[in-house]
Amino acid sequence: MNKQSKKSSNTVWHSATVTRQRREQKNAHKSAVLWFTGLSGSGKSTLAHAVEEQLHQNGLNTFVLDGDNVRHGLCSDLGFSDDDRRENIRRISETAKLLLEAGVITLTSFISPFRAERATARSLIPHGDFIEIHCFCPLTVCEQRDVKGLYKKARLGEIKNFTGISSPYEEPENPDLKIDTSRLTLEDSVEQVIALLRARNILPAPASKPTE
Amino acid sequence: MNKQSKKSSNTVWHSATVTRQRREQKNAHKSAVLWFTGLSGSGKSTLAHAVEEQLHQNGLNTFVLDGDNVRHGLCSDLGFSDDDRRENIRRISETAKLLLEAGVITLTSFISPFRAERATARSLIPHGDFIEIHCFCPLTVCEQRDVKGLYKKARLGEIKNFTGISSPYEEPENPDLKIDTSRLTLEDSVEQVIALLRARNILPAPASKPTE
Repeated sequence: MNKQSKKSSNTVWHSATVTRQRREQKNAHKSAVLWFTGLSGSGKSTLAHAVEEQLHQNGLNTFVLDGDNVRHGLCSDLGFSDDDRRENIRRISETAKLLLEAGVITLTSFISPFRAERATARSLIPHGDFIEIHCFCPLTVCEQRDVKGLYKKARLGEIKNFTGISSPYEEPENPDLKIDTSRLTLEDSVEQVIALLRARNILPAPASKPTE
Repeated sequence: MNKQSKKSSNTVWHSATVTRQRREQKNAHKSAVLWFTGLSGSGKSTLAHAVEEQLHQNGLNTFVLDGDNVRHGLCSDLGFSDDDRRENIRRISETAKLLLEAGVITLTSFISPFRAERATARSLIPHGDFIEIHCFCPLTVCEQRDVKGLYKKARLGEIKNFTGISSPYEEPENPDLKIDTSRLTLEDSVEQVIALLRARNILPAPASKPTE
């Protein structure tokens, strides 16, 4: 039975009176999905959490979805086969979409190494609400950092299909933002993301100084 | 392979600086999961959306998860077998938990006819944050309303395992609130839910009148 035919024809959308638009109006900021992608150790989670901290301090509604919290909950039944990885990204995308509807600026931090899975995510999120941020960092630097000791395990063959070592990372061809975390400070990286959110009108522009 | 063993031992929780507590402080209200349960046609979605409308008008962060929006997205791969229904409730609960963390008052509207599945939901949500609201309405009244024409189809055998007709509804034994939607107006029902949220300190108490 294919997925399409499993859907119930007896389910229809309820018209809710509280819409995303009304939530955004109340919040005084738009919602969006910031999709951070990059190698393990490239600084995705560090950057996502730092951006969130700054947004929160400015009174915005934010949430970070990352491999760690999702893997223990929503996707705790999934392993690391190709099918399971695809399903993992699909569920994350759908959850991000719900958070988007709820008026939350949602930051996702997943290696998400394959173009096809990032394309899936992009296709599920309304156009213009999906912002792809490539945390670029040379593999040698990531491996040198090896914060979690995973590269060592991967080199020893203790972890299979490890991105960068035994499984490819397909770099984004046209990300909304590419940040070289091996060269830029965290502070400057955060500033780049914030500047992009302002340019996209997700955040209100800072009040301009009076001219007289 | 059981589910436990599929979990990666290489995933750990990241310590985020923006916590649920800080979000609740910013929002000036706590978050919670309001789990509406009841027969099809008992008024779950109507009540959930009406409660949301009032909360939103008071500036609160809210979101309604219902069978209709979840079935087309996060759970679009699931059918209506026992296993799939269980998985449906599990994913909804985990998503509600994420929204709870995000500081959102989350209202879920699902028939959720089985005690076991509601117990699962309750077990996944932190203690005290899960509020079970039974939308009680006699089957005869629900069937008379038959807003979606589903009872007719179920009686004709066109829908199998339909709650109340060909599949049981196990009434909550000890819900946090039981509302008889066949007797109470929508306005009064909303007021009962709001009163409960005040009693549980999820909403701030209304400002008391000055005594002099």
